[in-house]
Amino acid sequence: MNNFSSSISSSKVEGTAVYNLQGDKLGSIDDLVIDKQSGRVRYAALEFGGFLGMGTDRYPLPWDQLRYDTDKDGYLVNLDKDKLNAAPKYREDTEPDYTDDYGRKVYDYYGSPWW
Amino acid sequence: MNNFSSSISSSKVEGTAVYNLQGDKLGSIDDLVIDKQSGRVRYAALEFGGFLGMGTDRYPLPWDQLRYDTDKDGYLVNLDKDKLNAAPKYREDTEPDYTDDYGRKVYDYYGSPWW
Repeated sequence: MNNFSSSISSSKVEGTAVYNLQGDKLGSIDDLVIDKQSGRVRYAALEFGGFLGMGTDRYPLPWDQLRYDTDKDGYLVNLDKDKLNAAPKYREDTEPDYTDDYGRKVYDYYGSPWW
Repeated sequence: MNNFSSSISSSKVEGTAVYNLQGDKLGSIDDLVIDKQSGRVRYAALEFGGFLGMGTDRYPLPWDQLRYDTDKDGYLVNLDKDKLNAAPKYREDTEPDYTDDYGRKVYDYYGSPWW
């Protein structure tokens, strides 16, 4: 409802670093998952890990968990490392079916309102 | 409201071909533009042109104009070539400010309800 740009392109989101409120870098956004019907971004997939040739994990985060921080040039999420370690995740080569059941589990984990 | 996947990842949308109802290939989706606040995809940028070293043009399409067609493995839009040629566009290296004024112009052109 203003005349300034409030949009961002997916190509700029992908690759953007993600930090928690303690200032730890958690990883970077690797992909966005979009609800086809509404055109809303349901998850931003945080990429994390990938050392020793093990491949990386993806942590789907509800979009509303991300706050862009201009100083850090990255997203901030309220997520300590213990909570991230126990969060829903998948291997990069085994993307889940994004069912409603799966979605509710992810949204509940982060305390985001399911839609 | 069902238990099947109704989501798609941005990485799969990017690069997907776009056809009109006459079966002409118009180009392919190059980028998605997301409203930061709502997390909704405001535009899918159709890439078109790019011959003779001239660089390509981007045509921002309202998300609701795209229908995925499994036979063609691409998106269908109700858009003949004359209408596309006169549509709002920008050069790949001169992305516009996505103001409300700009958005209304694009949405009006395609007859999509502005939000």
